[in-house]
Amino acid sequence: MIQKKSSDSKVNMSELVLPNDTNFYGNLMGGRLMYWMDIAGAIAAGKHCNVTCVTVSVDNISFDAAIKLGHVVHIEAQVSRAFKTSMEIHIKVWGEDLTQQYKYKSNEAYLTFVAIDSNGKPRPVPEVIPDNEEEKRIYDGALRRRQLRLILAKKMKPEEATELKALFIHD
Amino acid sequence: MIQKKSSDSKVNMSELVLPNDTNFYGNLMGGRLMYWMDIAGAIAAGKHCNVTCVTVSVDNISFDAAIKLGHVVHIEAQVSRAFKTSMEIHIKVWGEDLTQQYKYKSNEAYLTFVAIDSNGKPRPVPEVIPDNEEEKRIYDGALRRRQLRLILAKKMKPEEATELKALFIHD
Amino acid sequence: MIQKKSSDSKVNMSELVLPNDTNFYGNLMGGRLMYWMDIAGAIAAGKHCNVTCVTVSVDNISFDAAIKLGHVVHIEAQVSRAFKTSMEIHIKVWGEDLTQQYKYKSNEAYLTFVAIDSNGKPRPVPEVIPDNEEEKRIYDGALRRRQLRLILAKKMKPEEATELKALFIHD
Amino acid sequence: MIQKKSSDSKVNMSELVLPNDTNFYGNLMGGRLMYWMDIAGAIAAGKHCNVTCVTVSVDNISFDAAIKLGHVVHIEAQVSRAFKTSMEIHIKVWGEDLTQQYKYKSNEAYLTFVAIDSNGKPRPVPEVIPDNEEEKRIYDGALRRRQLRLILAKKMKPEEATELKALFIHD
Amino acid sequence: MIQKKSSDSKVNMSELVLPNDTNFYGNLMGGRLMYWMDIAGAIAAGKHCNVTCVTVSVDNISFDAAIKLGHVVHIEAQVSRAFKTSMEIHIKVWGEDLTQQYKYKSNEAYLTFVAIDSNGKPRPVPEVIPDNEEEKRIYDGALRRRQLRLILAKKMKPEEATELKALFIHD
Amino acid sequence: MIQKKSSDSKVNMSELVLPNDTNFYGNLMGGRLMYWMDIAGAIAAGKHCNVTCVTVSVDNISFDAAIKLGHVVHIEAQVSRAFKTSMEIHIKVWGEDLTQQYKYKSNEAYLTFVAIDSNGKPRPVPEVIPDNEEEKRIYDGALRRRQLRLILAKKMKPEEATELKALFIHD
Repeated sequence: MIQKKSSDSKVNMSELVLPNDTNFYGNLMGGRLMYWMDIAGAIAAGKHCNVTCVTVSVDNISFDAAIKLGHVVHIEAQVSRAFKTSMEIHIKVWGEDLTQQYKYKSNEAYLTFVAIDSNGKPRPVPEVIPDNEEEKRIYDGALRRRQLRLILAKKMKPEEATELKALFIHD
Repeated sequence: MIQKKSSDSKVNMSELVLPNDTNFYGNLMGGRLMYWMDIAGAIAAGKHCNVTCVTVSVDNISFDAAIKLGHVVHIEAQVSRAFKTSMEIHIKVWGEDLTQQYKYKSNEAYLTFVAIDSNGKPRPVPEVIPDNEEEKRIYDGALRRRQLRLILAKKMKPEEATELKALFIHD
Repeated sequence: MIQKKSSDSKVNMSELVLPNDTNFYGNLMGGRLMYWMDIAGAIAAGKHCNVTCVTVSVDNISFDAAIKLGHVVHIEAQVSRAFKTSMEIHIKVWGEDLTQQYKYKSNEAYLTFVAIDSNGKPRPVPEVIPDNEEEKRIYDGALRRRQLRLILAKKMKPEEATELKALFIHD
Repeated sequence: MIQKKSSDSKVNMSELVLPNDTNFYGNLMGGRLMYWMDIAGAIAAGKHCNVTCVTVSVDNISFDAAIKLGHVVHIEAQVSRAFKTSMEIHIKVWGEDLTQQYKYKSNEAYLTFVAIDSNGKPRPVPEVIPDNEEEKRIYDGALRRRQLRLILAKKMKPEEATELKALFIHD
Repeated sequence: MIQKKSSDSKVNMSELVLPNDTNFYGNLMGGRLMYWMDIAGAIAAGKHCNVTCVTVSVDNISFDAAIKLGHVVHIEAQVSRAFKTSMEIHIKVWGEDLTQQYKYKSNEAYLTFVAIDSNGKPRPVPEVIPDNEEEKRIYDGALRRRQLRLILAKKMKPEEATELKALFIHD
Repeated sequence: MIQKKSSDSKVNMSELVLPNDTNFYGNLMGGRLMYWMDIAGAIAAGKHCNVTCVTVSVDNISFDAAIKLGHVVHIEAQVSRAFKTSMEIHIKVWGEDLTQQYKYKSNEAYLTFVAIDSNGKPRPVPEVIPDNEEEKRIYDGALRRRQLRLILAKKMKPEEATELKALFIHD
């Protein structure tokens, strides 16, 4: 089975917040940001496994700082871990105010994509090799997040989620 | 403090899946669906508290059935529970194939919105009164989902999440 | 020939008026509203006859109340009567100001769609059964509106439009 | 009161039919065409009266020939007659198949716009002078169409519509 | 080889500048205008050679006057000269302020399109016959612009560009 | 006067080619690409001078390789040289076929932006310091391109363009 470095799938996207992307407060609407994050995630997944990929789940996203009209949205996406036919994509989002010259963290998210063969069925994807400390930490956490996803989708029972359960008992 | 029925905020949205909404398999892209879900959620939140609302978080979403090009997307959104200044919105999504006459569940999600006053600060929102069995069940689960959100956003420690912890220990 | 209830084809659509949907007065542009009404009509027609449908005509529409930026547009569409291969769709539009908590009638319209078979030719559609007083009244009026459409499209002579003519002579 | 020639307000618009403008048969959707017609009408009305104008009504439109994906849409709009504060705009639409080198009539419509002053109230508009035979014929018909609009909007009784009534009795 | 008049390919396009087309100063963004110019050019090229055409180059464009939100953009495009498989399209752009009743030149540009056969290969296009003084002047200049394009694309050496070179030596 | 490194203004943008971005051959339309290039350029210019910037000119662009539907577009933009109130932005564009795993150069362009103060007037911008061989080469060429722009915009006479003239005489 092929192995690929996590950073090989890195995608950078920059967008300008235009009037139609904002709500009444001139803030970027959450749905518009999720639209861009999904595109960035699909590109990163495609770079990793070289076939078409479809979104299967989105983890909890918390929008910490509003991005304003006229600011720039920076999105960085990269595959953090692969399971048999699916990949977790780690996405980081910043806003940037060009006039005031500061860049601020907006949110961070994990999306899961599945690789699809020509019959529309899931197909195996290359393994991911994390390369630095941050990538390793995220790679390790991926197992716990996957358990949480499976529990929330009612495909796993809480007591089977060994890694996740540990959080609640030993912490 | 005013109280409002959960169903008073119900919003129905129907959209047609057009070419630009789809990926290479002719399936609705996840990001486009999240864009519509966010708009539906913002309308439901606005109906409940009568001020402008902004998305603060999105819970885990699992896309179970792909919605195809030319199918109809039905989105139903309604406020499920209110906390001090925030509201959880419960959103259900179906696809409908008009030609084959079947309607299928696509996904279900919880979005959280915050009500904003004229200075851009959070302001109190009316309480929610659940009215039937399903609404009550969702109302009760809202506490557990809120704990999960706070833990994931690192604003609560796992051991403080009493309701959520119970899931892992007694189940 | 199959018969279907008028209400079986009912479609509800809610949209948020965004900056690009408005003119210089911050009012929803008529053309943008007609775009949404056409989509709602196409869905209702498709629900009724389960094949792809195309717009063949739009009746007089009078825009009574402007819908403002940030307001919600509610569109309700349902098949009001079927002729051999065509269906009249009755569409009602409201605006809603979430902040001020009032909902106002914007306009009402009749669109006609034709059902198309796989060769692109018109094909028969199920009959419509009106179910309550309002649906019956609209069902009856459909004949008169059809005569008006045919006269205006120069496919019928005014003197042949028995029901319509009566309006001018006996009223 | 200023008078202006009908042709002074003429606007030509050409658009290319792109994938997202079409339905499942690769035909331009009616709603998309109406969106363009409304923009063309607003420009023609603005040219005539030099203030912002809003759509108040759309007359019966019959879509005679479907315009295909990749074809060009030609829209010609011009003010046909002015009443006190409103203008009737005559709009003609053709499709053009560049490859096969033929141009075909798609539909013709009358939209009514009202001129708005800085307080959002209707304001007087210049009179229209028709200049050739076709413009005169359309100018004359405008009165009859206006009666029909007023009857359909329930702002006039059928027996008061002298010009329109004549159609049904003497024809 | 067929010959066609330059004016036979003329296309007029009028667009309204909407919020999402503008930057923070309420001016039409250059990229949005280039998008429209490219569509107008593609239609003019298609009218001239009756096959699908693709953009191969854009000459220097200088945006002289900003077009404001709410103004009308008028674009006029027409084939100015044909080479073997390519055509130069001359495009003129005006802004129009309907309220203040003045129309101003915004910019002028030359785009080059290539005609494509059903295998995606370039195919011969009809010759262009200029018909009046302005068309002749532009037709003549096309050779010089073509040399400049080829030099800038590094497909011609400066010393081979006889017509262009003359500009620098004798002027 | 402040000086800034060329690379400090670097912007990376990645976009997915969707159906509505393409022509009949499934190739990205030139105008859509120019729209994205202009946004990338505006962000790079804004990063360099920290005020709003407007496009004033676009140099010759030659589209060498068509980018296909479903491919990724990578755009890299960075300020290459500043003049008094304007900046030249160097933009490089690649297409990437994720499935076949190859990345290909599509085109390269120079756009010029002007920095605008709060009265809408041009204002001085920081100088640019090129940092490596490629940046220096592009920095040096900027003078020649500027002369060409001025000549083409008829703001300079060919004989005054010392650097540019040399190309035709000594090469």
